[in-house]
Amino acid sequence: MNAIVGQSGGPTSAINATLSGVIRQACKSEKIDKLYGMKNGIEGLLMGNIVDLSYLFNDEKSLSLLETTPSSALGSCRKKLPDFNADEEIYRRLFSIFKKYDIGYFFYIGGNDSMDTIKKLGEYVRNKGIDFKVIGVPKTIDNDLVETDHTPGYGSAAKFIATAIKEIACDCSVYTIKAVTIVELMGRDAGWLTASSALPKYYYGLGADLIYLPERPFSQVEFIKHVKAMLEKQPNVVVAVSEGIKDANGEYVGASSQSGVQDAFGHKYLAGTAKYLESLVRHEIGCKVRSVELNLPQRCSAHIVSATDIDESVAVGAYAVKLAEMGETGKMATIVRKDGEYGVEFSCIDAKDVANKVKYVPANYINEDGNNVTEECIRYITPLILGEKSISYENGMPVHLKIGF
Amino acid sequence: MNAIVGQSGGPTSAINATLSGVIRQACKSEKIDKLYGMKNGIEGLLMGNIVDLSYLFNDEKSLSLLETTPSSALGSCRKKLPDFNADEEIYRRLFSIFKKYDIGYFFYIGGNDSMDTIKKLGEYVRNKGIDFKVIGVPKTIDNDLVETDHTPGYGSAAKFIATAIKEIACDCSVYTIKAVTIVELMGRDAGWLTASSALPKYYYGLGADLIYLPERPFSQVEFIKHVKAMLEKQPNVVVAVSEGIKDANGEYVGASSQSGVQDAFGHKYLAGTAKYLESLVRHEIGCKVRSVELNLPQRCSAHIVSATDIDESVAVGAYAVKLAEMGETGKMATIVRKDGEYGVEFSCIDAKDVANKVKYVPANYINEDGNNVTEECIRYITPLILGEKSISYENGMPVHLKIGF
Repeated sequence: MNAIVGQSGGPTSAINATLSGVIRQACKSEKIDKLYGMKNGIEGLLMGNIVDLSYLFNDEKSLSLLETTPSSALGSCRKKLPDFNADEEIYRRLFSIFKKYDIGYFFYIGGNDSMDTIKKLGEYVRNKGIDFKVIGVPKTIDNDLVETDHTPGYGSAAKFIATAIKEIACDCSVYTIKAVTIVELMGRDAGWLTASSALPKYYYGLGADLIYLPERPFSQVEFIKHVKAMLEKQPNVVVAVSEGIKDANGEYVGASSQSGVQDAFGHKYLAGTAKYLESLVRHEIGCKVRSVELNLPQRCSAHIVSATDIDESVAVGAYAVKLAEMGETGKMATIVRKDGEYGVEFSCIDAKDVANKVKYVPANYINEDGNNVTEECIRYITPLILGEKSISYENGMPVHLKIGF
Repeated sequence: MNAIVGQSGGPTSAINATLSGVIRQACKSEKIDKLYGMKNGIEGLLMGNIVDLSYLFNDEKSLSLLETTPSSALGSCRKKLPDFNADEEIYRRLFSIFKKYDIGYFFYIGGNDSMDTIKKLGEYVRNKGIDFKVIGVPKTIDNDLVETDHTPGYGSAAKFIATAIKEIACDCSVYTIKAVTIVELMGRDAGWLTASSALPKYYYGLGADLIYLPERPFSQVEFIKHVKAMLEKQPNVVVAVSEGIKDANGEYVGASSQSGVQDAFGHKYLAGTAKYLESLVRHEIGCKVRSVELNLPQRCSAHIVSATDIDESVAVGAYAVKLAEMGETGKMATIVRKDGEYGVEFSCIDAKDVANKVKYVPANYINEDGNNVTEECIRYITPLILGEKSISYENGMPVHLKIGF
């Protein structure tokens, strides 16, 4: 019996490490003969775009290079499956492909939208009585999947953000005139990435001075008060804001000046929260102010991955294969944090309990004023960004596995 | 006799390496007793903000940590001196401070505005017959100083840009739908930083597909033609543009079509160059398009400095002290590239030949269509980004020297 693996949703710096984990374990498995990869997720699969990963990754060198290559090596898609009661045709096509390639194991690495695919495929095989193992593997820099302590990809993104904020705060500290720097971070619904901006100030006294997460309603009046108070204490103020901060009515901050474009899942497309707040500070305070969007480098700065994140990402990929070998189906592999000193073990959960849900930053991780995180939050994030991977450089740039094999 | 050193203008990832070079050589010098540092350049100096660097940096550990700490450790300013014929008062104040501290050597690390300070101080001491050595040390990520092969700080910024573009191009390659990603890079007048975005595609076949520098007039019509032609060849197109691209009339791109645009507060609003081109592509081509501004991390990403740049930055700082010891004054230290295999030696030039001038990317470094750089340009940039420095991490973040001692 063969297996197939795919990657879905937005890429991260660690999603290829998880792919490597799947490959490593599938090659060891006595139940799996060949491991195929679907190019561009189920969208490519439906078009028959399949590669033989057992053949392509038969050496340690390419696997370890894969583990520090950013982006999704197999390509990605944002396709959602329809409900099979409403439209079974696509399921029939998928299973005729599985039959053709003698595939009995299906692994899908992705976020909460991708777990919807696992849920639906799981329900389908259960309903039809097909012996087919469908396992999801978590991935998202947003860290917003429920039922797992954290998600592979988050630690590396958080390490990049903490580092960038530390460097930006150094940079901004050189002039004596009053100045505000507003840094916008990813996170439409959950503030996990923005929360990681708190680390440099906590450990080194220089970093983001004010931090706003989407979990708390954002008040422009309070914001200006906080900035003014901070400017009384120090000439340079660094503010970190999540792209998804909303006012008390649930409207994105500055939404009226934004476009309203939607992505394939009907999510509102957001740009320019920091840019809007820059105008607000200029208007209300009148000091020097600038905005910085860390943007794509948050999810692809593989040159500064967290070793903890990469090692766990490999391990959870391998664990997903073990789950399938144990006969599980319709499940997502999860990471469980051990008590005491930091360490993890793996478990699993029904994909239906994860799909389309969002894990928010809990209330006790946010301070009373809603403008910073608490020490509990710092303690949660810190171990996830620890450790560095040795990166090979050639021609002055990091070496990556060639994407699109 | 004592010496004093200051940093001026925008910070870089290498300006502290140059400061370290000055400290190292001053400590060895038989002519210099004590090395002072002026905080916030001549602005702080005029207020008497002086620290004793010989005392603060008397160990190898703090010097080598200084060399990979971003930002200007001494703080910075943007103050320009008046012409001494028009206003001598400020010069009298400066020289009374120099007398008080028995200072006979003055080192100033900065860009072309800072070299204006060297020029004016040099003219003043020559005119007044004061025995005082004034030496400038080049610094700018923009690489736009004339009479030096390149500037300390450029190599590290170029290495960060080449790496970020490589990672972004990986990230953008995962979907099959047509998409354009426009990355805006620093450089208001000169396109050196933007040119460095060419390296990943040249060496690895994946990177910036179209590159626009301010040295060539930018035509929106031609730009859309180039993007459309590139989209015919490949689904994902990455464009790198300098923030300073201008149309044939010398107007910043998008400036005229945005002249009436106001932000939410009725202030004149100027979107970034990439943001404007994003709208243009959406309007003219209608495909998926996004813009990314690499922003401040270009000048402060010290975690990925170029070892070549840092080593040269230290060496040129040391050479500036040697110039003063040899009796030079009113000069800027320069970097001279040797013929054949890459290597540098140091020389100097009158500050008046550098001050307020701009070194542009030469015509033979830009291709005929004005949408990429030539191989000659690649050969010029490549050695400057080579080599990595070992960075210490603690709590998952790079360790820096505490700024503001």
